[in-house]
Amino acid sequence: MKQRQKVAIIGTGMTAFGDLYEYEITDISNLAIFEALRSSKVSRKLIESLYVGNMGSNVFENQENLGNLISTYSGIKSPSFKIQAAEASGAVALRTAYKNILSESKDIVMVLGVEKMTETTKQPELQHALATGLDTMWETKMGATMGALFAIMAKSHMKKYGTTREQIAQVVVKNHNNGAKNPKAQFHNKLTIEKVMNSKPVATPLNLFDACAMSDGAASVILAAEDVAYSYDSDPIFIIDSKQGFAPIALHQRDSLTEFSGTKFAAEKLYKDHSISNKDISFAEVHDIFSISEIIAIESLGLVPVGEGGKATEEGVTSLDGEIPINTSGGLKARGAPLGATGIAQAIEVYEQFKGSAEKRQVKDINYAMSHSMGGSGGTSVVTLYGRGN
Amino acid sequence: MKQRQKVAIIGTGMTAFGDLYEYEITDISNLAIFEALRSSKVSRKLIESLYVGNMGSNVFENQENLGNLISTYSGIKSPSFKIQAAEASGAVALRTAYKNILSESKDIVMVLGVEKMTETTKQPELQHALATGLDTMWETKMGATMGALFAIMAKSHMKKYGTTREQIAQVVVKNHNNGAKNPKAQFHNKLTIEKVMNSKPVATPLNLFDACAMSDGAASVILAAEDVAYSYDSDPIFIIDSKQGFAPIALHQRDSLTEFSGTKFAAEKLYKDHSISNKDISFAEVHDIFSISEIIAIESLGLVPVGEGGKATEEGVTSLDGEIPINTSGGLKARGAPLGATGIAQAIEVYEQFKGSAEKRQVKDINYAMSHSMGGSGGTSVVTLYGRGN
Repeated sequence: MKQRQKVAIIGTGMTAFGDLYEYEITDISNLAIFEALRSSKVSRKLIESLYVGNMGSNVFENQENLGNLISTYSGIKSPSFKIQAAEASGAVALRTAYKNILSESKDIVMVLGVEKMTETTKQPELQHALATGLDTMWETKMGATMGALFAIMAKSHMKKYGTTREQIAQVVVKNHNNGAKNPKAQFHNKLTIEKVMNSKPVATPLNLFDACAMSDGAASVILAAEDVAYSYDSDPIFIIDSKQGFAPIALHQRDSLTEFSGTKFAAEKLYKDHSISNKDISFAEVHDIFSISEIIAIESLGLVPVGEGGKATEEGVTSLDGEIPINTSGGLKARGAPLGATGIAQAIEVYEQFKGSAEKRQVKDINYAMSHSMGGSGGTSVVTLYGRGN
Repeated sequence: MKQRQKVAIIGTGMTAFGDLYEYEITDISNLAIFEALRSSKVSRKLIESLYVGNMGSNVFENQENLGNLISTYSGIKSPSFKIQAAEASGAVALRTAYKNILSESKDIVMVLGVEKMTETTKQPELQHALATGLDTMWETKMGATMGALFAIMAKSHMKKYGTTREQIAQVVVKNHNNGAKNPKAQFHNKLTIEKVMNSKPVATPLNLFDACAMSDGAASVILAAEDVAYSYDSDPIFIIDSKQGFAPIALHQRDSLTEFSGTKFAAEKLYKDHSISNKDISFAEVHDIFSISEIIAIESLGLVPVGEGGKATEEGVTSLDGEIPINTSGGLKARGAPLGATGIAQAIEVYEQFKGSAEKRQVKDINYAMSHSMGGSGGTSVVTLYGRGN
């Protein structure tokens, strides 16, 4: 038998993102899990493994056996474990599940990304949870926050490439426009460049509206081996490949403040291994944890020329009707960013676009799509490539 | 090309287990990582992925991007992430790495298990960290501790099978005898049945010496695909297979209080898939987080008849010179149990036994070996089978 090369997404489920305080983490998970099972008509008994992407269950739920907990309370009752790579936890979980199917040990598995951030209402606890993605010794202990590090990147990008504050704010405006068209997005309100620039400062030049918000949510996909996928879906959407790239955890250890080198490595490897170019990518979901992050990400992914991410955004290249729509879901900013759930939510947006069910945010003539997720300030990067079977 | 079936261990490194308070978690990790690199003569640059098994880095180090942190500070600089399944984190990391090599995406990878428990000297924080492996909602919040749950299992086993308190204590005596012969063990002192039975009560019938202790440590293995392993080792030791089993996270949800059903499932699948029987297993490292756990584990693994784990221990069947030596390393009890590191330490003990370098604890005439690790009170089980190439 031929070695498996790709893996299909045969079911998806997702809660609306936002404030789900009244639910337990197991309830939030089950909402996504049951929807994925129902949408795929896969019986719970066929799920051979459950991969859980989550960042902060220790801080939020005192739980460090989360895979086993969710496998129990969902009734899936399959072996499970948690995968943690800060904000990239969901994307790494998806990639790990994909690899396990390639190893032929499993035919059908489930991946869940989940986070319940409202479990804590104490700001110090929340800030603590978010800072754990950074270099504890040389960033967090020295007082650096996630916002401060992205602010350094923003200033560097502005200085090096002439990127304007308005261009950075336009990322937010665009993503809120897209989020307004996504029923499951956390934010449906539209913003203007002025509103972003006049919101409360977080770390100059970044303001409150440049940052994604606290959010609860779960997203789940059912993956199947290529050879079994067609029994569930006559036109399956495939994960063609998924690459992970490395950069040093601390910003000061990196060669450049204006690129995500791990992202660049992963994307270039995808292009090369699959003999495609950036022109083959029809749209992408990228890690806009702060507005500036999207600009650097689309450059590092090779989707726009280096240094021109701000300009491209301003000119509408990345808008829904642009040349390369970015974050059609609303992105981390407007769709919402429950840490471990974001990587899976990206895959679901890609799936819906391919299936033509993205309603008012539908992209046309799709060839390939990409999702991009990062942990911390960019030390961990995962880039995943999606397409149809031939 | 033929699909890969097994994966070789080509290098190992491990710190002594115990109190390593003065080191940072990155230092502890590096001690194990550099020893594994040196022992295998594998250059850092060849490590394509780093899998980190760890349970409590959030509680102990405020770190939830641990893979990236360790990949950075070890100079490995490869993609990395953390795998968490309570005390089985190391074993699940090993299994995930093994699967990724089978998927043919990687040839050489490293697995690290690490935990620094002395980072907290506050008992509540430590108890909090340990309780996170249980059902947060229906066990921890109701006041159940790990010790209380294993005490229920001990009482049930005693009642059902006539297992005696002395037999349970003999597990500890045996494991301390073995630990005394292991230079890297946390405890080198010998114990008697009386000393165990007279130590401070934890949860009747279990006492302080029935439980494993707080520990720091790291253990690392380098894994290579079958087809490249022989360039590094003319007689490689292989991971033949690794299975994970599920049981409900909470003790009260299980069908039996006297077996680990997930362990049983995984072991039976291994026997069946590889057409071997319990008689082919020459020795095993098992999860003796409490003394009673070893007795139930060896029964659930099929290594001794059900109900006779206590009797077998008393009669010396599981001693170093017995029919089926168990925990030759000293086990979690005497070798030490730095949560995430234990699963990897087990693999290293197996490797050393196969290589004939276990000195005074050397087992003879080895055919196959098994390692067994659990998360929580038994909801997560991993059983791994090792052997030589033919």
